[in-house]
This record gives sequence, C-alpha cells and structure tokens, in this order.
Amino acid sequence: MDIAALRSANPDHWMKAAAIRALTLDAIAAANSGHSGMPMGMADVATVLFEKHLKFDAKNPLWPDRDRFILSAGHGSMLIYALLHLTGYEQVTLDEIKNFRQMGAKTAGHPENFLLDGVEVTTGPLGQGISTAVGFAMAEEMQRAQYGKKIVDHHTYVIAGDGCLMEGISQEALGLAGRHELSKLIVFWDNNNITIDGTVELSDRTNQVQRFKASGWHVQEIDGHNPAEIDAAIIAAKKAGKPSMIACKTHIALGSSAQDTSKGHGALTDPKLIADTKALYGWTAGPFEVPAEIKAQWEAIGARGAADRTDWEARFASISERKQAEFDRVYAGDAPKKLSATIKALKKQISDEAPKVATRKSSEMVLEVINPVMSETVGGSADLTGSNNTKTGDLGVFDPENREGRYVYWGIREHGMAAAMNGMALHGGLRPYGGTFMCFTDYARPAMRLAALSKIPTVFVMTHDSIGLGEDGPTHQPVEHLAISRATPNTYVFRPCDTVETAEAWEIALTAKETPSVLSLTRQSLPTLRTEHKVKNLTAQGAYVLADAEGKRQVILLATGSEVEIAMAARDKLQAEGIGTRVVSMPCWELFAAQDEAYRKRVLPGGAVRVAVEAATRFGWDQWLCGERGKYAKAGFVGMDSFGASAPADQLYEKFGITAENVAATAKGLL
Amino acid sequence: MDIAALRSANPDHWMKAAAIRALTLDAIAAANSGHSGMPMGMADVATVLFEKHLKFDAKNPLWPDRDRFILSAGHGSMLIYALLHLTGYEQVTLDEIKNFRQMGAKTAGHPENFLLDGVEVTTGPLGQGISTAVGFAMAEEMQRAQYGKKIVDHHTYVIAGDGCLMEGISQEALGLAGRHELSKLIVFWDNNNITIDGTVELSDRTNQVQRFKASGWHVQEIDGHNPAEIDAAIIAAKKAGKPSMIACKTHIALGSSAQDTSKGHGALTDPKLIADTKALYGWTAGPFEVPAEIKAQWEAIGARGAADRTDWEARFASISERKQAEFDRVYAGDAPKKLSATIKALKKQISDEAPKVATRKSSEMVLEVINPVMSETVGGSADLTGSNNTKTGDLGVFDPENREGRYVYWGIREHGMAAAMNGMALHGGLRPYGGTFMCFTDYARPAMRLAALSKIPTVFVMTHDSIGLGEDGPTHQPVEHLAISRATPNTYVFRPCDTVETAEAWEIALTAKETPSVLSLTRQSLPTLRTEHKVKNLTAQGAYVLADAEGKRQVILLATGSEVEIAMAARDKLQAEGIGTRVVSMPCWELFAAQDEAYRKRVLPGGAVRVAVEAATRFGWDQWLCGERGKYAKAGFVGMDSFGASAPADQLYEKFGITAENVAATAKGLL
Repeated sequence: MDIAALRSANPDHWMKAAAIRALTLDAIAAANSGHSGMPMGMADVATVLFEKHLKFDAKNPLWPDRDRFILSAGHGSMLIYALLHLTGYEQVTLDEIKNFRQMGAKTAGHPENFLLDGVEVTTGPLGQGISTAVGFAMAEEMQRAQYGKKIVDHHTYVIAGDGCLMEGISQEALGLAGRHELSKLIVFWDNNNITIDGTVELSDRTNQVQRFKASGWHVQEIDGHNPAEIDAAIIAAKKAGKPSMIACKTHIALGSSAQDTSKGHGALTDPKLIADTKALYGWTAGPFEVPAEIKAQWEAIGARGAADRTDWEARFASISERKQAEFDRVYAGDAPKKLSATIKALKKQISDEAPKVATRKSSEMVLEVINPVMSETVGGSADLTGSNNTKTGDLGVFDPENREGRYVYWGIREHGMAAAMNGMALHGGLRPYGGTFMCFTDYARPAMRLAALSKIPTVFVMTHDSIGLGEDGPTHQPVEHLAISRATPNTYVFRPCDTVETAEAWEIALTAKETPSVLSLTRQSLPTLRTEHKVKNLTAQGAYVLADAEGKRQVILLATGSEVEIAMAARDKLQAEGIGTRVVSMPCWELFAAQDEAYRKRVLPGGAVRVAVEAATRFGWDQWLCGERGKYAKAGFVGMDSFGASAPADQLYEKFGITAENVAATAKGLL
Repeated sequence: MDIAALRSANPDHWMKAAAIRALTLDAIAAANSGHSGMPMGMADVATVLFEKHLKFDAKNPLWPDRDRFILSAGHGSMLIYALLHLTGYEQVTLDEIKNFRQMGAKTAGHPENFLLDGVEVTTGPLGQGISTAVGFAMAEEMQRAQYGKKIVDHHTYVIAGDGCLMEGISQEALGLAGRHELSKLIVFWDNNNITIDGTVELSDRTNQVQRFKASGWHVQEIDGHNPAEIDAAIIAAKKAGKPSMIACKTHIALGSSAQDTSKGHGALTDPKLIADTKALYGWTAGPFEVPAEIKAQWEAIGARGAADRTDWEARFASISERKQAEFDRVYAGDAPKKLSATIKALKKQISDEAPKVATRKSSEMVLEVINPVMSETVGGSADLTGSNNTKTGDLGVFDPENREGRYVYWGIREHGMAAAMNGMALHGGLRPYGGTFMCFTDYARPAMRLAALSKIPTVFVMTHDSIGLGEDGPTHQPVEHLAISRATPNTYVFRPCDTVETAEAWEIALTAKETPSVLSLTRQSLPTLRTEHKVKNLTAQGAYVLADAEGKRQVILLATGSEVEIAMAARDKLQAEGIGTRVVSMPCWELFAAQDEAYRKRVLPGGAVRVAVEAATRFGWDQWLCGERGKYAKAGFVGMDSFGASAPADQLYEKFGITAENVAATAKGLL
C-alpha cells in the first residue's frame, strides 16, 4: 500500500485512524500477545463508522436507543478498546489499554460484555458475533413495533472477518437476516484474504458477494481504506431495505512489514517493525500517547450523540407512564409483579387437576399463562414447533409483515437460533426462549456456552430428553446432554418431573438475570406427582423430599424428570416390603448445590442406601451418590451406560433396565 | 401432481419407484411412526440413480470401489431400507422392513452404519450426511492418487433435504467441496419446499442455486419426478469437473392427500390415505408385497455391478503384492507392524532426553515418527496448524494440484472438519486426525458424537486445553470440555502429562477400530515425568501409579495432563513433611474404568486421603474421589469452579489456586 498517498488524501481521517493503529501496536507489544493485524486493517472503516454514523454517547453507554456495534472478529479486540478509549468511555482508561490482556484488566484478550459497557457481545469464538447480531436486529424490529419509532430506532453494525464467514453458523445468520429483511443490520466484512494458516484461498474460494446475495442481502464492495467510499457505502446500506453487507477490501497489518501476511494476523511485537510502521503512519507520539488534538477530535465523536440522547429522553418522557414503566421494567430484566401469582395459581390448579401430560406439554401450559403477562417473552423453535410445544396462542408470528409477532420460526438452525436469542437478550427488553430436541444441544453448544459465560438469561427448551423419545433412535436420544449442560458453569439445568415443577422451573428461568436455563422436557406423558399444593417454589431449592420414608429410613432414591415417577413406584415396592424409602426429586442440581449445608444434609442425610435413577449416563451423579455423606459401597445407579436404540419408548425403558423393579432391586442389593 | 401422467409416461420406471413408495407407506403404518413424505418424494431420483448410475453389488456391499450413497436426510430412512431390500442386500429382509423402528431391528428409526451394510453413514442429525460425504469424496481423491484409477474410481452420491441445507455445517461442506474441486461428489437436493413447521419460506428464502454456485459448485435444476431429466442431470454432473448439486423439484408425500404439506413430512398412517395413494399409484399388491416381476427388476439392478466388481478384483490382483497388502491392511484398519516398535523407540528416546515441551509439541514429535510409517494418516487443522502442531514434514498438502497430499487446511470450520474426518474414516483406508483449540470442541460436537455413536476411530487433536492457554481468555479456555467428552459413551479422552504419555495415547488412538479419541493437549511446556523407560503402554491402563508413597501411604493425588507436574511437586512437599504420598496419573478415565477391579484397587486403594487436581471443573471427578473405595470426608479437589480469565497462564494458575502449595494444603486439611 502507498501509505503516503492514503495519508495525504485524507490527513484528518488518517491521524484519527492512526491513533487506533498506534494504540493497537503499543498495547500488543506491552502484552506480548494479541492480534495486531485486524485493528490495523479495519481502523479506517471503524473511524468512519464512529465519526459519521454510529449513534452513541460515550458518557451514557447504555442508552437504550444507541446503535449497537459488534466486533464479531473478536480477536481484534484492540480495535474496540481503542475506540472506546479514544471516544471517552470512562471505563476504558489509558491504564486499561496499557494493561491489555493482564490480570484483572477490563481489556481482556477478547471483548467481554460483562466487563465493559460498549462491548455489546462477548466475541472471539468465530461466527458468534454476526449471528448474535441477528438477534439484536430482530429485537430492534420487535421493539420498534411495540414502542414506536421515536423510542426505538437504531442500527446494528458488525465487523466480521473471514473466519466468521467460514463458520457454518454464519450461513444460519445470513438466512435469518435475509428472510426477515433485517434492514437495520449492516455487516462490514474485513476482506483481507488472510487467515492464521495462510491466504483464504488455501481453504476457501467462496464468492462471498454472491453468497450473501443468495440469502437476500444487499451487497457492496469497497476499498476499506477509502473514507469516502466507506461513508457512501454506509449511507447506501441504510437505505437498502435489506440486511446489508459491505465487503471492505483491506490490508491486514496495514503499513507494517507484515502487511498482507499471516504473521500480520498475530502479535506484532518487534520494536523495529513497530517503529518503522509508526514512522510510515507519520505517528511521532510516544508509546500509548495520543496527541491532544487527535484525542479531542475523538472525544468530540464520543460526544456527538449526546444531543440525540437528550432528545430521545424528552421523547421517552412524552410517552405514557405505563409504557415508560413497562420499558424500564423489561430493560431492567425484572419480571412483572403478576408473574409470581400467575405461576402460583397455575400450580394450584395443576395440583388439583393432576393431569398426566408430557413435560413439554406442561411447558406449553405454563407458557400459555406466562406469555400474556410478560410482553418481553419471545418464543421459537428450530423447526419443531409442534414437538417442542413452544408456541402459545397469543404470540403472533414475527416476520416482515408482522414485526409485533413474538414467535420465531427459526428453521433448522439450532445454532443460529441460540446465538440470535442471546442477541435479543443482550439487546435488552426481551426474554427469548427457543426449542429443539435435547440431543441437538450439540448444535447449539457454542452459543449456549457464550450465554453462560456472558451472563445472558436465555432459555433453552430442550424436549425429547431421553430414550423416552423412542423410535427415532440413538441419533436423537440424549444420554450425555444433561452432563454437558451441568458441567458448564453458570447454567441452570432443570429436569422437572411434572407440570408443577415445570411451572416452578419456568418461574426461575424467567426471573434469572445472569444465568441461562436449560429445560429438559419429556416427549412421554408423566403423572402429576406434586398433588399437594405448595405456595413455595420447591424447585428453587434444587432438590427436595418428594416422599419421605415410612418407618426407618433405609433407602434414599434420587431422581429427576421422567424417572421420578419410576422412583416413586420403586418406593411403593420397597415400602411394601417394609423398607423405609425416601424419594428426593432433584430438578436442578446447581440450585441444590447452592443451598446451605444444613439444608442439603436434611435432604440427603448419611446412613441410607442411595440409588439414583435418571435415563442418562451416570457421569456426575457420584457427587450426590458417594459425595454429600454418601458411601461408595451403598450407592447405586440406574440409567444409561451407552447410547440408546430405536424402538418404542416403553420397550426401551425395559431394555435398558430403567424400571421400578430394577431400582428396588438395586436398592435391596445394597442393603 | 398428475400421477396418471407420470405413470403413463414411464410405466416401468414408475412401478419400480412405486415399490419404494408402497414399502414406505406399509412400514411406517406398521411402526406407527417415521417419515413417509421424503421417500415418496425422492423415489424417482433414487430409482434412476440406482438403476442407471450407482456402482454397487448388492451381494458384496463392502466392495471397496463401490460408489457411496449417503442419505443425508436420514429421517427418510425408509428410502434406503426399501432400496437395500429391493436390490437384494441380504441383511435387509422383508422381516426387517416389517420390523421398521422396532426393538432389535436393523431398520432403525434413522439409518445406522453399524447396523447395516449399504448404510455408509449414520444420519438423522441434519447436515451431517452432506458434510461427512465431503470426507468420502476427499478420501476417494487421495486413494485414487495413491493406488491409481484402476483400483479407486468411484462417486459419492448424497440426498440432502432443506434441513441439511439450512444447518450451518452445510456451508462448511460446500466451501470445502468447492475449494477442493471434488468433482466426484454429487448432491441431490430434495427441493420439496416443506419442513416440519410449514413451507420453507416460513424460515428461509435463500436461493440455493446461487449459494452453491458461489462456493464453486456445478448446479442443475430438474423435475425430480422426470426420470429422463434425472438421468441426464447425473450424466452432466459426472462430467462437470466440480462438485455438483442437482436441485430436484419434488412433491413431498407424492400422490397422497398430504402431498406438499407438513403433514406429509411425518408418518402417514391413515388406512384410507394409504389405500387411496396406492390406488393412484396403480399399486394393487397387498401390504409389504412386491410383485415378483418388479422385485426381479430391482434385483437385476442390485446385480448390475457384479461384473464390474469381478473386473475390479482382477485389476486388484494385478497390482503388486505389496500394494495389495497395504490396501487390505488400511481397509481392515490394522496398524502397520512397525507402529509399535516406532512408538517404543520414541518413548525410550524421550525418557532418556527428558525434553520440556508442551504436549501439543509432544504430539507433533509423535506424529513426526508415526506419519512416515502409516500411509493412512491424514492430518489437518481448522486454521490453527502452527498452534495445534498437526502438520509434519512428510505429509504434503491436499488440494486439486496434489491429491496425494495428506494434510488438509480445513479453514475455520471445526464442524465441517470433524464431519469430513468421519467420512474419511468411514470411507475406509484412512485414519484422519485434526486439530483445533479444545474449547471449540463445542463447534465440532455433533460430528464428534456421531463418531462415538457410529464407532468411527477419528482422532480429535484438542490443544490449549485449559486456562494454560492464557491471555486469549475465557472464550478460549475450556473448563467443561473434558467432562463433555468423558460423558459421551464410546470416546477415549486422553490427557497426557508428558511426551511419553502422548506417544502412548497416539498408539491407542491409531489402533482403535471402533472408538474415537480426543487428545487434550497443552499450550504450555511440561517436563518429562516418565523418565524411566517402560516398554509397556501404561496409558492403556487408563491410570497408574506414577510415584508411590514413601513410608505410610496417607495421601493419593490424582491428576491428568499439565496438573500431574503440580501433583508431583505437591508430593515433594508432603513427603518432605513425612506424609507418604502417591501420585496417580490418569491419562484416560475410560480405559481405567475398563480395567478389572483388582487393578483399580491396586491403583486406588482405600484408606488414604484423595485429592484430584485438574484445571477443569470437578464435574465427574467424584467417581474417583468418593467412588472406588474413596470417602467423601477424605476427598478434595483442586481445579476450576468457574470460567477462566484473560491473563498470562502462570498468573491464572495462581489466581485459581491450582498450585502445588494448594494441593498439599488441601491434602493436609483432610488428614
């Protein structure tokens, strides 16, 4: 590149962008790690976006009607940290820049939304940013429909790299955005032709322009170092009436000796390279120094949105108090006051009527009463609506003709659904839930992990949660997926045994503010076991005594979900033989583990034989069987130790020995 | 559709295809579950493919040079079962068709490769078939280059549905096939415009023709019910010089009252619907009856390849005995005789030299000696070649110019890589391994699970396996991923502590015939702990005493991978205080669990305090801490109970307390 020509063509622009590049070089050199090339390559695009288009107010980073900026290529984190610092976000001090990637710094290796305002999404796992952004754009459409354009009217901007576009999830995102004509979603593709292993052609020759067009996107191709072209492209993208992709031809590690190479993708730390590059930039300030004049220009950019924000606040004050209160409530993530009473009423009704239904149907019954009182819920399914029971009568279907619709037909896109749901929740004002078969947790895993890591209370409705799925066979029967979600920090895994526990689980899931929930629900019908109404949410304790021993307590049966019924039947058998047997229902291990020792001891006292029954692998169960005052020699497990099989569900339970008879026999064998 | 016109236009073809449709209706009615519409819609395409193109010999289903037929839309399993039955595959008797989806039947709900010859891939989880097929086509190219066209020269045919194309992994597959110009891969898209939730437009409006073209595919659009068009399209696809997609416009549940509806996607079991549909087809035979004449035509199709096969056998006999033996060996999945001695020699050298290297580097050292003696290995990485250390000097890079290359630059496509590796292994003759960061297990999960379920010995090289990854932070630091793979049946999870254990792990992984392996490898350097050479593969026992207690055994420290060094240092501290301490290295839980009780008891006797140390969550560890003669009150764990953080690795180990000091203190606190 002819850097001199770039400099002279747009000197003011150049120096602002150079500030990003210089800070990037300095911070990565100090950390001795990071990715220099991407911020150096995309500094021009980011500068024009922030200077001329992005609606934000650095002093009020959480202003609800701000434009969202999502760095999908999260390894280029110094780009966003430099932007936030330069424009005057208070959290991103110069010390934070100097401490890039160091212990305790908010400037983590990859941008983390829970550390910094201005970081809308935790990115780094490639493809997540662009896919999460789809949820942001959908949320904006929904809320604009709900609150009106004067309250909600903003764009979602994304910078994505080649890696983001190679990850399969990006295709799911493209399809969703195209289908729903998300015209306020604008993606900049950092088209630098370099990946870690070499040039992109080494592994991919996809014509991205053609690919995006195939999914209904507006596409432009520009020189990503030409500010006028960048500006014009953004203006055109805003008018396109479709989601828009701007292919920005850039040079990774611009101006350095590593430009246009894989080396430039990584950490450029060589002092001579840094000095030479800065000299070429015309950047004479010392390390971490930004000349006052340039900093002032950037701060002016950071303040540019203040007036807009003030105007917005006036407009907000002009809407009805009821609407204001509702808006504030949903953005705070607070449940409506009515929720608790609604759940209690349903619990009472269910305990009285004692229906025998699958917990996926229980979940639908709960949603039928919740959705009308929570305007913020958004339901959906990855093409299993009738099986996941996620759609209730009042929601309406979201599409370009009905932006108020609160139900999304996600298509066969578990991963894209999970990421977009995260985006809706992160956008604020919505509580998304979405369903698939539990086995396909696998497809959604990267986004489910990000929900847990990023503290997003997304709800994953995972039905057909065991061999109880039956004939579809082992490809569709989860055996390890409870363990997968339970092993993940900051995740509630609910496996309710009946409609009452399902209602309690939903109440917790929909009031959680920083924890995602996985609801593990059956295909097959289950009896109501909680026939005695309790106002208290027993599921919130994680585990509790569902039926206590009559006579001397010799056995404790631990079970979840569909196997609680089996444990109860086993208890009947054991009690009939005079063996005092307690049944502990354990709908949520994580919440039980969080109880104090005294409660846990009351539920799981020492001494008795313990047998757990769950139609899944034993993996993890020893915590409750041998741990918590349990004993190895007195512990048994009835469940799966292999993948399942294809046959009717009741026959599978027999085949794999998950029966009351076997539970009782296992307990007796340990006495 | 005007069924009468279809019948009269091609009466012979029609009745052959009608046999598929009738068997589908009968089997699904008998099972009262399944998916009728897809086999009914794609019967014409399948009939033409099998009759005129597919190279196979029903009596010799494993003939290595057969064409591969992969039903990516696996829910339409009755299509493949009907085809296998009609053409005379011995395993698929009429009784099997009658027992569709029943206990013990080989005709499972979704096609399972380990139950039936002729089923090349276990399908059902959407998108897997088409992506696995990419590996088949790559394997064919590699082996054709290696053995010559007279020994290896076949096509890979795929039937994929809308669901397969909506799943993100399909884009990864498209990109790979396009990049590598896999001209012998031919995909039929069952373009029926119906998903479970409704019409495809409900969730997707992607122009698939344009999308495939964007990735370098040859694309044709045809009437999927017109045999002449189908035939012509296959002929053209074979000549295209590119991977080929044939968009087949079809009618789901053709000819039934549920045609072109979501209802038609599922199980059509209504007797009247079935009777009416068969009448329209002109199918007068009773349930499960195929008129002898039609069956004979199908059996002739099944025998059509016999002569080709005989010719192939003659050609095979004409190549050198050495090449024949090599071919037979790699197809049998047998390791070369040299492997064992090669591993032993390396182990001895390492024990003598005691290098301090990261186990990802250890892995490379092992591969450097293995790859030259195993012509069947194929290496690769999802754009982290230099980090995963998967490329050795001798491999050469696979691409259209070098089909003999044994290294694949997979691009940023962990999922597509995993599926394609499965395909290479299933094709036969190859042993693929591929790398990414362990955290991105998440992206590859659906294919990793299929490897375990389908008994495919794929090797997943997962480096940067803990907070030891350092500055990249929690998005890149696995904490739950060991548990995820350990919870999965039929999976070896190896976490070697040094180069010697790494070599042992590779030996097991590369001799396994039905079990995939996950190698959990460090970013950071580790000392050689196995400095005393043992001929025996100690890792094959899963766990073993690395250092025994001196004096009375009071403490047993259990550790894996990078934490074994920490356990050894803790042992030094404890022994210095006179506390007899054993260190047990546990590189593979699954293999240890498979040892007999006596061995397990020798390694983990009762009585002592047990502390496990692993830079991951405790989830699963209670099996060894409190189980296996352990005691809850005498068990401790040093590891992670949250996500990680961004900082240099050594500081993170301090921050999270994973230190020798803390291990020793934990043990002492339990004494």
